[in-house]
Parts: sequence; C-alpha cells; structure tokens
Amino acid sequence: MKTAILKALRQNEGYVSGQEICDALNVSRTAVWKDMKKLKEEGYEIESVSNRGYRLKSAPDILCKHELCSLIDTAWAGSEVHFFEETESTNTKAKQLADEGAKNGTLVVTENQTAGRGRRGRDWLAGKGTNIAMTLVLKPEFAPNSASQVTLVAALATASAIEKIYGAEAKIKWPNDILVNGKKVVGILTEMSAEIDYINYVVVGIGINVHKQEFSDDIKDIAGYVEQDGLPVVRRSELLAEILRQFEKYYDIFCRDLNLKNLKTDYERMLVNKEKEVRVLDSREPFNGIAKGITDTGELLVETEGKTVAVSAGEVSVRGLYGYV
Amino acid sequence: MKTAILKALRQNEGYVSGQEICDALNVSRTAVWKDMKKLKEEGYEIESVSNRGYRLKSAPDILCKHELCSLIDTAWAGSEVHFFEETESTNTKAKQLADEGAKNGTLVVTENQTAGRGRRGRDWLAGKGTNIAMTLVLKPEFAPNSASQVTLVAALATASAIEKIYGAEAKIKWPNDILVNGKKVVGILTEMSAEIDYINYVVVGIGINVHKQEFSDDIKDIAGYVEQDGLPVVRRSELLAEILRQFEKYYDIFCRDLNLKNLKTDYERMLVNKEKEVRVLDSREPFNGIAKGITDTGELLVETEGKTVAVSAGEVSVRGLYGYV
Repeated sequence: MKTAILKALRQNEGYVSGQEICDALNVSRTAVWKDMKKLKEEGYEIESVSNRGYRLKSAPDILCKHELCSLIDTAWAGSEVHFFEETESTNTKAKQLADEGAKNGTLVVTENQTAGRGRRGRDWLAGKGTNIAMTLVLKPEFAPNSASQVTLVAALATASAIEKIYGAEAKIKWPNDILVNGKKVVGILTEMSAEIDYINYVVVGIGINVHKQEFSDDIKDIAGYVEQDGLPVVRRSELLAEILRQFEKYYDIFCRDLNLKNLKTDYERMLVNKEKEVRVLDSREPFNGIAKGITDTGELLVETEGKTVAVSAGEVSVRGLYGYV
Repeated sequence: MKTAILKALRQNEGYVSGQEICDALNVSRTAVWKDMKKLKEEGYEIESVSNRGYRLKSAPDILCKHELCSLIDTAWAGSEVHFFEETESTNTKAKQLADEGAKNGTLVVTENQTAGRGRRGRDWLAGKGTNIAMTLVLKPEFAPNSASQVTLVAALATASAIEKIYGAEAKIKWPNDILVNGKKVVGILTEMSAEIDYINYVVVGIGINVHKQEFSDDIKDIAGYVEQDGLPVVRRSELLAEILRQFEKYYDIFCRDLNLKNLKTDYERMLVNKEKEVRVLDSREPFNGIAKGITDTGELLVETEGKTVAVSAGEVSVRGLYGYV
C-alpha cells in the first residue's frame, strides 16, 4: 500500500486529501495514517495541512520497492520489481528468477551488491548508497544470434536517460560502456541462457556510479561517476525509472526490426569512438583504424588501409590509442 | 574405493588376488572385503576362488558413480561425475553446478529424471532403469556463435557410440535427433549461458531410450528404443562410457578448427535426410526441397527450384514429407 500512497502523492502537484486516498485505495484512514508514518520514518517528508490534506515535499534517495514502483510508469519494463537490501549480484539473482519463471520485464535491484560482476567474470564495484545495481529480465521471441544487439540497446537507453535527467553529455564507448566527462560511469553486462535456436531468457545488468565517490588507485584514471560538479543532484530512483522508459522505447523499436537500423542515428551521435583512431585486438594481427560508426546489427565499422571492416564484439576488443576512450 | 576395486577387477580379464588389490589401493584386506560385499549387494557378481583371487563375472545395469567411474577412460569428458538417484533434469542440475564453478567435462547422470525437458521447454520422458539421462558441462574458449555446432557434434558422437556398441545402424535427423529403425531414440538438448562475446558454459544433455519399453499413444509412432529385437543387451553404463569416448574424440577435432569440416563426412554418412525431400518451416514461406548435406558450420543444405540454400537451426525446423523422418 505504501506504493499506492506514494503514487497518489506524486500524481498531485499540490495537496491530496486523506479521504481521497482512502477512497481510491478503499482502506481506512487509520491504515493510511499508519503507512504515512512508516514512510516518514524512511525519510519521506510528507506535509499535512488541515483542510487541504497531504503533500510530498521530498523523498529520500533510496531504491526500495515502493519507491521504485511509485515512479515506474512503463508498460512492461519493470512491471515486476524484486528489491534486495543486499545480494551478491543482480544478474545472478535475475538468472535464478528467470529460471524459476520470472516474466519479461522483471526488474531486480539491490542497495548493496556484494559480488558484482563485469564482463568475463571481472569484478564490478558498487558503492552502497551511491550507485545503482539493476538487472532487467527479458524473454524475447528472437533467435540467440540477435541477442548481442540488446547490449547496444541498453547502452543507448542508459546514456539517453543520463542526458535527459542531468542535461549532461553522455558518450558510448562501443559496444556498451558509458562515459561522462571522459570516465566510465556505467558498466553493462548482458547474459543469455539459450538453446541452439531458442532464447530461454536474456538478463541485462546495468551498474551505474551515480553520486560523488572515491576510487582506488588502480581504477581512478578510468572510473568516474555521473554527478559531476555543476550537475543537479538527482535521486537514483528517478534515474532508474528514466532508464526503464528509455529502454522500453528503444527495445520495442529494436524488436520490430530485429536490427538497429532505426536506432543507429541516436547511437552514433553518442559514440565516443566515432572518427577517432581505435586499435582492434583480436586473435589475428591487431590493427589500428578510424571508427566510422556501426552496422545495422551493431558491429563497429573501422576504416583501415583504405577499406572498411566490420568488427564484431564476438571477435574483438576495441581500445582507443590515448587513454581509456 | 568401490570405483578402484571395480577398476582393478575390470582391468584383469582373469583373476586378481586380494593382496594385489590391497597393495594397489594401500588398504587392508578387511576394507576390500567390506566393499566387495557392498558391491555384491548391489548386484555385482564377484567370484572368489582360493589361491586365485577375485573375478568380476557380471555387473548390474545401474548408473551409479562407481559403476561409471570404473568404466570411463577418457581424458576429460566425464572426468568428474555427479550421480543423482533422482533429479528434475540433468541439464538443470548441470547448469547449477556450472554456475557454481564445475569444470569442463563434468558429467551429470541420474537414474530417475522426473521433469526432463526437450527443446523449447517440451517434455522429455525418461523411464527409470531403461534409459540414460546424462549432461556434460563444457567450458569452451570459443565465441557464442560457434556453440550451435556442438549439438551436431553430440549427435554424431551418440550415433557413433550406438553403432559401435550395438553394431546397428543409427541415423541422424538434422540437426540432432537420432533414429534407430526409423524411430527417435535419442534427444539432445544443448543449452548455453553466455555474455555477448564470451561463453560462461555449455551443457549438452543427452537422453536415450535404451531398453525395450512401451510408449503412450501420442508418441508411439515417433518414439523408439535402441535395443531392437536381434540386438545385443548392453548395460547402459557401457553405452554411456562409449558416448564419452566418441564425444571427446569428435569435440576435440571440432575445437581445433571451430567448424565441422573434418566431421562432415562422418555426419553426412549418418544423415537420414540426405537426398530426401524435406519441408523447411520458418517465419517466411515454407518450402520443399531435397536435403543435400551440411555446410562446414552445420547448416542444412536444401536444394529447391534449382538453387541450394543453407538452412540454419536458428531460423527453421525441418520436417520430412513422409512421417517423422
């Protein structure tokens, strides 16, 4: 019911009367009053003025279920929310839930990810209270060989959400890292469980360094956070809800065509590598070239020695020549 | 220790003395005698003749760990065996074990699979005592887009093992069903957990109807068992050990090239669809054609209206025009 009360308060810019809430939720005033009290204890500032009713003055920067559910307004992305105060990794949790039948759009969020994973089993650190650790469960109809494009859709959605919420420039390092102010602030880990010609499920894990924080010496040149000096301070739940909106929008477009044709312009606008020199590292001879953009299916186009080659994330890594970018 | 005793008995065609076993295993005669007694209780016929020693006269048709481990002689396939008296599905169990770090070649076997799965979540029935339900965990170095070929490797290995053990003709219905006497006796379910460019693991589940059995009306026209009239009665553990041998052989060849070039001749020799009319069902217009063989990466080549098209298991199903084949 806390979700419904928060929703009612958020739907009204001004005051909403206690009676209106009771009628809408079909519960007693005592019940509403009890949950209001709990919300206040959690840090929600709820003003009550006699004859006018209640007004939400401010909300705490927490990621619990009612906070998220009262903000999520998408059709299917995040239609079910599993929040954990603490969990090893939201991807691991999401895979378990998917194995047990969780539906398309199920969202897993934690406030404290204790063993976050990056690509290929590398660590991903997520500071408690400052970051977002979220994973979306997808149950697509398409074949496994289309799944690699989902990670580009997720990068595009997350970068777009950051731009929309902060009004700041977010850049994508192909295929799916996101940079703000030249430093990596988002890591995306897309995993899939599949049969030969059939996807059981895809989980898209998104880890975001949101608020100001310190990094250890070994990563401080690469890692950053979204909330640079001069940018507004935004609650993580607002950013998360915007990511869901952007993801749903772009993923629905992707699913219509099963390619990135209609997302390419947006993706390339944010592509930090574009027209920059990159180094392609793969099992053959590494080579340098100029990144020109992406193909309709998400490969990076690299111009080298007069010809353009399409580089697949399945075969290579791309590294800029100067620093991380 | 039961494994070691069985191994010692099996390595010797004739008799092996109790002392020899004790010395080899570095245990007391009492310990050996105790385990011999247990083995006899399980159904192993162990003859003991004074002054000559022990001889294994016959073994029961069971699939427990020591039975399997005393027969498995491959380098890595089945190097670790997890046997369950009963489990939902060996694939599900294998995926759990792989998530927890099970190594390449880990084998999961059950005597009673209660919720076996076929492709796309369909049921797979496995009669207790008459069938084999096994899953092999693989941790390959190759990229996710090579994984679909593993299912053809598994089909080739299993069909070859049946031919070797029974001296009977086994046929492959592309991509991975196996027929004996025109009926499906083996189902293979290959599943993968992967990141965009990295395989966490592949599990290859193989279900085999081995001994004579009855089928329900809805599948009796399609389903069969290996042990047709006239064929020898073979213990399931012997067949399983041979499948591991064949799988290891063919998979090692596959991993060298990451294609089926060197397995194609063997595969096509067993391909039941070859030179037969097939119907290709996919999201576009279905069409009929003549199956000609497979490509180097496992697609089915179908000749239709003068041209040959490569049909991928990721896009289509293939159905023969007359009956199941």
